[in-house]
Amino acid sequence: MLKGIPVSAGISIAPVLRLTHETAITQAESTTPVDAAQELGLLSKSVEQAREQLEKLKEQTEEQLGSEKAAILSAHIAFLDDPAFVGEMGALIENQQLAASAAVSQVADQFIALFESMDDAYMKERADDIRDVSRCLIRNISGSDTVISYPEEPFILVAWDVTPSETLQLPLQHVRGIVTAKGGATSHAAILARSLGIPAVMGAGDTLMEKVDSGSLLIIDGTSGQLIVSPDADTLAAYQEKAAQEEKERQLYEAIKELPAETTDGHRVHLMANMAVPEESDALIASGVEGIGLFRSEFLFMDRSTLPDEAEQFAAYKHVAVAFGDKPVIIRTLDVGGDKHLPALALPQEENPFLGFRAMRISLARPELFLVQLRALLRASAFGRLLIMFPMISHLEQLREAKRLLEQAKAELRAEGIDFDEKIAVGMMMEIPGACLQADAFAKEVDFFSIGTNDLVQYTLAVDRMNANIAELYSYYHPAVLRLISQVIEASHRAGIWTGLCGEMAGDPLATKLLLGLGLDEFSGAASVMPKVKERIRSISVEEAKQLAEHVLTLSTVDEVVQYLKDKAL
Amino acid sequence: MLKGIPVSAGISIAPVLRLTHETAITQAESTTPVDAAQELGLLSKSVEQAREQLEKLKEQTEEQLGSEKAAILSAHIAFLDDPAFVGEMGALIENQQLAASAAVSQVADQFIALFESMDDAYMKERADDIRDVSRCLIRNISGSDTVISYPEEPFILVAWDVTPSETLQLPLQHVRGIVTAKGGATSHAAILARSLGIPAVMGAGDTLMEKVDSGSLLIIDGTSGQLIVSPDADTLAAYQEKAAQEEKERQLYEAIKELPAETTDGHRVHLMANMAVPEESDALIASGVEGIGLFRSEFLFMDRSTLPDEAEQFAAYKHVAVAFGDKPVIIRTLDVGGDKHLPALALPQEENPFLGFRAMRISLARPELFLVQLRALLRASAFGRLLIMFPMISHLEQLREAKRLLEQAKAELRAEGIDFDEKIAVGMMMEIPGACLQADAFAKEVDFFSIGTNDLVQYTLAVDRMNANIAELYSYYHPAVLRLISQVIEASHRAGIWTGLCGEMAGDPLATKLLLGLGLDEFSGAASVMPKVKERIRSISVEEAKQLAEHVLTLSTVDEVVQYLKDKAL
Repeated sequence: MLKGIPVSAGISIAPVLRLTHETAITQAESTTPVDAAQELGLLSKSVEQAREQLEKLKEQTEEQLGSEKAAILSAHIAFLDDPAFVGEMGALIENQQLAASAAVSQVADQFIALFESMDDAYMKERADDIRDVSRCLIRNISGSDTVISYPEEPFILVAWDVTPSETLQLPLQHVRGIVTAKGGATSHAAILARSLGIPAVMGAGDTLMEKVDSGSLLIIDGTSGQLIVSPDADTLAAYQEKAAQEEKERQLYEAIKELPAETTDGHRVHLMANMAVPEESDALIASGVEGIGLFRSEFLFMDRSTLPDEAEQFAAYKHVAVAFGDKPVIIRTLDVGGDKHLPALALPQEENPFLGFRAMRISLARPELFLVQLRALLRASAFGRLLIMFPMISHLEQLREAKRLLEQAKAELRAEGIDFDEKIAVGMMMEIPGACLQADAFAKEVDFFSIGTNDLVQYTLAVDRMNANIAELYSYYHPAVLRLISQVIEASHRAGIWTGLCGEMAGDPLATKLLLGLGLDEFSGAASVMPKVKERIRSISVEEAKQLAEHVLTLSTVDEVVQYLKDKAL
Repeated sequence: MLKGIPVSAGISIAPVLRLTHETAITQAESTTPVDAAQELGLLSKSVEQAREQLEKLKEQTEEQLGSEKAAILSAHIAFLDDPAFVGEMGALIENQQLAASAAVSQVADQFIALFESMDDAYMKERADDIRDVSRCLIRNISGSDTVISYPEEPFILVAWDVTPSETLQLPLQHVRGIVTAKGGATSHAAILARSLGIPAVMGAGDTLMEKVDSGSLLIIDGTSGQLIVSPDADTLAAYQEKAAQEEKERQLYEAIKELPAETTDGHRVHLMANMAVPEESDALIASGVEGIGLFRSEFLFMDRSTLPDEAEQFAAYKHVAVAFGDKPVIIRTLDVGGDKHLPALALPQEENPFLGFRAMRISLARPELFLVQLRALLRASAFGRLLIMFPMISHLEQLREAKRLLEQAKAELRAEGIDFDEKIAVGMMMEIPGACLQADAFAKEVDFFSIGTNDLVQYTLAVDRMNANIAELYSYYHPAVLRLISQVIEASHRAGIWTGLCGEMAGDPLATKLLLGLGLDEFSGAASVMPKVKERIRSISVEEAKQLAEHVLTLSTVDEVVQYLKDKAL
């Protein structure tokens, strides 16, 4: 049994189509003397063909998936116009008597190595674009089919990696899944796979290609990342059953997609999604969520050696604001430190990073950086419906200082005549026990709360959830955690504000009735699990949920809570 | 300005007496040919002299400080009877023609190196005994005075290190303080300095001897560890004032030493002390505390490569039980992990050790080790008034499992016919927010609570108190921490049990009135600060304290709380 990173949900069962083209570029080298003029002609022709192919693909993508996804291909086409790229290939043919394909290969390898060595996540991803364009050029030169000839029956693609254009050219009627040795959840190919609804597991490791042969039956679970090659009859039957169940649920969820998250007795709550990168916007909107309950602004700051300036941040936030239109998007200000490192800030090494210098603590210690983010957020608020949320607040003074800086940013923008949403809502994460215990005081000074159960459980129970030695102690069903959640919601309602929850608990159907009964106003989890939560909400009466919650608050162990919920809440 | 480890409280101001005898042993080497018979005679005579000197010192110590302190010298004398020690010196004189003093020096160096290389803290300390005995031998051989001739006027001793016998031989009428380059708070010399009431700072570092000359005026602060050489007039005046104030307070505290910790309106609470090693017992009893609120059993487990067996643990716990007689001693079961490492258990490296595998989590994962400790504690309970306390409990199931193991240990002892206190009280630390929030449930299953504010603040505010980057966020005056303390005390009283507090807050006079008002039953802090707390309690009415606490619970920031207490609680 193999395992990779789950990047696009769903179970698929089909024979493998194994592609080994990762090495295609370097294999194209040739040492036989060539006629330079002839090779230059080949290169030039292949560039023109590639441009036509990519333009056509871009048009199709725009039609099928929208302009955001199509823009990925514009970057590809731009490389064909770059003299440092195609020009260098020509020079190699003329000066070093290389064959056209060898020249493409050599220049591509140099560019890929260069981009991959960069700190910046965005620049790193350009290596994928180069790989994509170069493969296209070499196929054209060698005269092989410009598109791979896929089987006319169901298959799961298994490859070293897969480029965006390859993903877009997969025959949707036959491809049942994508499995790659390289890559991860935020690559362009992964984002496209999710948009196209193809179950996918990436980053399965270098041994993948040895362990999987073309024609073998393969089961992939795009939710868990599990891969099962040549399953026995029992396993196969179990997964077929699971896949059928998923399909049934999918149809059910599709049927309620446009309906509100409303209980049987008419109590309305809001189902939102968590989002990591702006490129997910279209897919999330299509999934039927009402907005974004947590957009992590870290994506702009991580894996790079410089900090994004106001213009870059503004562009990213504006993109999201525009994409979601009148749907709300809650953007959390920078939450790094802890397990999230930031090379550009040179954060100190710490003995207990989860109890250390992180998130709002960094922002308040470096107001000059925080103000850049606040200005960018405010400017973007003119283009949609943004809400600002502060993470890791434990002291009232921190909230007041953060709000003071926000007012300062507003005053600056007013003085500069720059538009922003004067009434932009400001909320805070409730993820530190100390803040939850003082929810009454905080509720008077914010517009909303969002309970972050992942961290809240860690601190309330003194359990690092990454620590395998004590994993059995970590649970959001601990009575103390439930009491804090209840206190926060009650305090918010007394103050006339609303409370959301954006930890994993929000997407756990076992918790739905309980959270509803505790009075939660907004649920924000992974988009893939929210349809199930909506289905639960639409089958529950809020009066029953309140009675259930009242009883659960009297229980004293995790086991008692879980058992009671299994009996009464499903 | 220099700084060292504060090991014995008090301010002293006096001229320096600098001793450089650390090198005495190695300086004693001689390369001139010797008459072996004559040197053997010298050695033998010096051993007999040393025995007499040490026996005499032991008698004096027994009279002055009791048998526990005198036992330190028995270990010294035992070395004089050890053939591997004195016998080896004789062999060196005979076979290698060494002078007697050179032979002592060489053997001592070997033994010191051997003991210092050991993992076991107890064995490491034997190096001090060897150093002590060897210096004594060399002084006898060289015919120099067997006791150093100290000045007939006040002085502060400054030395590389100081041995137990040297400490005991200091002229109490003139010595005003001890400062050493080496050593720390748990050395025999430090324990003796505290017993003798001599302010002391140890471990001031290798540069100490260069920076301090004999005759210079020196200020030492045995509470902060600060050392000021040749102070200017203003500094001197300030410290003289401070010393006078301390002396006044000392007299005040001495006057109320035998009086109860009772408010002006007759409300009685209990003042206990925290204890790290059993050797502190006598000094703590002498200081007037009512018992031990927290005895950390870790001392037996740390800094050694093997675990103490039942017999060794029993002996240590029994020693304490006997020493305190009918005064209560709360022994906390093993609390390692976090920042306390334990070579014998090979604990895993962790990303966030404060949120990791520690204390009760280890004990429950290794019941075979935990049972050894529980059996040893139970057996010792037959000899005094012991209470058992469990640390780091967050889940009710953990408490139940710990109590089940305790019952198992009791059943074993009953079956073996071994005595123990059948009614031994069992309590738990309240140091995890999750436990405090569920105090009502826990209160039904224990005999007492002890709030551990040091850890509780860390978890409630998500602040590692060792992390300098966020030090200003750490405070037990945070409103959320105060609410938890209040909830725990109320829950305990509703269930008819009592609550103590054993963090630093218990010894903070600014917090005394507030804690009294919140209903705290027992305060346990460093023995040195408890007299001040008693003085506060005896000047407060509990009714006023309750009103104060009620108001403090309505405040919303640390600053507001501290300001209010400074205005109303001192």
